[in-house]
Amino acid sequence: MSAFDELMAFQRETEALGQVMGRLGWDQETVMPRGAAQQRADEMGALESVLHARRSDPRIGDWLAAVDEGALDDVARAQIRHIRRSYTRALRLPDRLSAEIARVTSRAQGIWAEARAADDVLHFLPVLTEVVRLKREEAAALAGGGDAYDALLDDYEPGATAAGVGTIFDRMRPRLVELRERIMEADRHPAVLSGRFPAESQMILAREVATHFGYDWRHGRLDQSVHPFTSGSGTDVRITTRVDEVEPLGCLYSTLHEVGHGAYEQGIDPAYMLTPLGAGVSMGVHESQSRIFENQLGRSRAFCGWLYHRMSELFGGSGAADADAFYAAVNRVHSGYIRTEADEVHYNLHIMLRFDLERDLIAGRLEVADLEEAWNARFEADFGVAVDKPSNGVLQDVHWSVGLFGYFPTYALGNVYAGCLFTALRTDVPTLDDDLARGHAEPATAWLREHVQCPGGLYTPAETIERACGFAPHEGPLLEYLDAKFGALYAL
Amino acid sequence: MSAFDELMAFQRETEALGQVMGRLGWDQETVMPRGAAQQRADEMGALESVLHARRSDPRIGDWLAAVDEGALDDVARAQIRHIRRSYTRALRLPDRLSAEIARVTSRAQGIWAEARAADDVLHFLPVLTEVVRLKREEAAALAGGGDAYDALLDDYEPGATAAGVGTIFDRMRPRLVELRERIMEADRHPAVLSGRFPAESQMILAREVATHFGYDWRHGRLDQSVHPFTSGSGTDVRITTRVDEVEPLGCLYSTLHEVGHGAYEQGIDPAYMLTPLGAGVSMGVHESQSRIFENQLGRSRAFCGWLYHRMSELFGGSGAADADAFYAAVNRVHSGYIRTEADEVHYNLHIMLRFDLERDLIAGRLEVADLEEAWNARFEADFGVAVDKPSNGVLQDVHWSVGLFGYFPTYALGNVYAGCLFTALRTDVPTLDDDLARGHAEPATAWLREHVQCPGGLYTPAETIERACGFAPHEGPLLEYLDAKFGALYAL
Repeated sequence: MSAFDELMAFQRETEALGQVMGRLGWDQETVMPRGAAQQRADEMGALESVLHARRSDPRIGDWLAAVDEGALDDVARAQIRHIRRSYTRALRLPDRLSAEIARVTSRAQGIWAEARAADDVLHFLPVLTEVVRLKREEAAALAGGGDAYDALLDDYEPGATAAGVGTIFDRMRPRLVELRERIMEADRHPAVLSGRFPAESQMILAREVATHFGYDWRHGRLDQSVHPFTSGSGTDVRITTRVDEVEPLGCLYSTLHEVGHGAYEQGIDPAYMLTPLGAGVSMGVHESQSRIFENQLGRSRAFCGWLYHRMSELFGGSGAADADAFYAAVNRVHSGYIRTEADEVHYNLHIMLRFDLERDLIAGRLEVADLEEAWNARFEADFGVAVDKPSNGVLQDVHWSVGLFGYFPTYALGNVYAGCLFTALRTDVPTLDDDLARGHAEPATAWLREHVQCPGGLYTPAETIERACGFAPHEGPLLEYLDAKFGALYAL
Repeated sequence: MSAFDELMAFQRETEALGQVMGRLGWDQETVMPRGAAQQRADEMGALESVLHARRSDPRIGDWLAAVDEGALDDVARAQIRHIRRSYTRALRLPDRLSAEIARVTSRAQGIWAEARAADDVLHFLPVLTEVVRLKREEAAALAGGGDAYDALLDDYEPGATAAGVGTIFDRMRPRLVELRERIMEADRHPAVLSGRFPAESQMILAREVATHFGYDWRHGRLDQSVHPFTSGSGTDVRITTRVDEVEPLGCLYSTLHEVGHGAYEQGIDPAYMLTPLGAGVSMGVHESQSRIFENQLGRSRAFCGWLYHRMSELFGGSGAADADAFYAAVNRVHSGYIRTEADEVHYNLHIMLRFDLERDLIAGRLEVADLEEAWNARFEADFGVAVDKPSNGVLQDVHWSVGLFGYFPTYALGNVYAGCLFTALRTDVPTLDDDLARGHAEPATAWLREHVQCPGGLYTPAETIERACGFAPHEGPLLEYLDAKFGALYAL
């Protein structure tokens, strides 16, 4: 066997073990007996040790040195690029630091949950200070002299920089704040849905919609969990949703969101299965798929027309007078504190707030002691209302407690990518509105599969979007889409 | 850390990874998307490589050499005994041979399934010949000069020998053949159940019965699968059952059987979790628990009385005129070819047939080419009917195709152990019949938990049974139980 073949065989086993870790996570959130939590932590810890050792195995360095890259084709070179990047990162991170981060964030997550339940920021700040200290240390180690925050961001969005993302966000923010303000001053006040929506019928609708959006049941399944998620790559990509019997849109749009993530993984070229190319290329591109499924397609007027009638059949009505009122209810813009409940207009403002604060935290321009004050000031400036309690503010997200710094911006980046892709998609698929009006998302999802999903990790995230759209990604299309959609809905 | 502590920390991770393998197996048989089979094989293969390397890791030898056994307590010494035994076996087995057995048995299982479906013995014999050759080689390597078959048996029933098991079986066989003949000549012909038994109601009954027999839902769950099984140790012990809407006893007694296995794992001292002592000590002792739950308790006249009434409530009747007729139907003795469908009288005759044939195969006294003829001759002698087709004969079990030689005898050994335990249990729990008549198996299952299950792997299998019963295990109690039960049922 050549060095390349040996390296790929080793990598394939590592990828397979990574998938096993994903299965354990899925199991934990869906079917695990509730008394098995501690044992599961031990099982996942043992597997994590194995994975950690493999990711920094010195044989990878030997194989990489021995590979003749000039003799490789594009696909093989892309594999090497991914492996080299991951190996370099693994070598830069001292084992001691990884272990300490794992230990502290595991503890911090529990403390965060207690603090949020008690609305007690001070309970959380000491352990968050420890987490931030460790993440600064990790960022410096990974950066190798470069920008610390970029080194963290790179884990979720390879090749992106805080400067680049920040430039896009800084252009978006005033436009979104202004749009938000005009909507809030508008005379229109769409009703919310009302009725009884039995869980069983909601799940029937969820499965139906997933099918219509191209989710492949031969290689997936849909279950319920507290927080919806997608798990797995290749031929076993599972999604979950949640059900609330008085509010049917949560189940429906959580499902569509996860179908977007799931369709991405299912849509990758099968030849890449269990290789570094065989998973979504970045969190931003992943989020572009979940968001375009959920918003541009799922919350469109055309699809809402079909949905209005289907929900009438399934639930005997939804409280909306007609399809237009239903569409307005689905897209109702409302002030709110919680990111995960935010509408399309508010959502990115949430992300920018977190992005700016976490950049400052990692750079040392902001200390944990001053975090809540900074959060509340920024929130009032952008959202026009004051935070009423920490669980509606700085304590609302789990991310920082588990050490996820550099992750938040990929949510908004995903929206920006989705805006770009939707422009290209509308041009290439002229029947889009007619299809959606019949409740079907094909051939739109087929277009996404071919242009975005199929290459997996073959190109960089930015290249992936640019190849699909024909232009480099920027915030323009998203802002135009939002202006047009909400301008019409609120008669601005 | 002492050598002992280091060894135990290493072992604990291995045990945790072994549990992960069990989760993957459970997932595959219950919830896995059907298109994920090949990827799952890759995932399990990667994890098996990790486990294989850990089980023969030379550091285990160093730690074992450095441990001062004289300074250890009984529990620690038992841990060392298990680790040493497993390590010795791992070292004796060449990697090449393990890999070849894995490869050939994986292929053989598919060929066996085809051969059984087509009733074509000749299609199966070439690959079975390969399997037998490899298992002879494995047995010789493991035996280290001792008896080859014993070396295989030791994997499932540590300390047992073919000579010892054979002596017990040879005493049982004529008694069972004679009992079978007397029953077949009897005038009584119990009816079979009839009616419609909706799957949902069968599962309600299965959960209810599992609860009444002490299954711990906080640390387990019940699902459906094609072949019922139990999976996992410690705090995550899952069971499955199967449902046939025209035949309710299969679901019920499969559940009770697996509840016995599951209760064993759940009943082990939590202090032993993720150590070699933290799982059932042998397949024979395991089967004693499943069998005593299913047969001595679950098919008793007292429990059948309760069950008759409960099934009337749930299904509006079961086709039996009264509780006595129901009891007779549940325990109906019937000629049949298939081991897994056999009643308590026929079951052990099936096992003895396989035990004698596989001993001869491994010893080289019987060749694969002559196997079917030997099977058919023995079957007619013991069962009084001729095998009509290979799928009812030599092709019925999956075991040999996957290399399970030495496993079959543990089924009958489990019955022998169950007979012994039931004698002791009846003495210690005088309220047994009253409890069962109310549908409850406590305090009988509590007695089993305390006397058999709790010690896990602390004692040898034979010691485990002897400590629980107060006498060394032998076939007498089982034969007396069968004579009494079926003598009364058939008025012999």
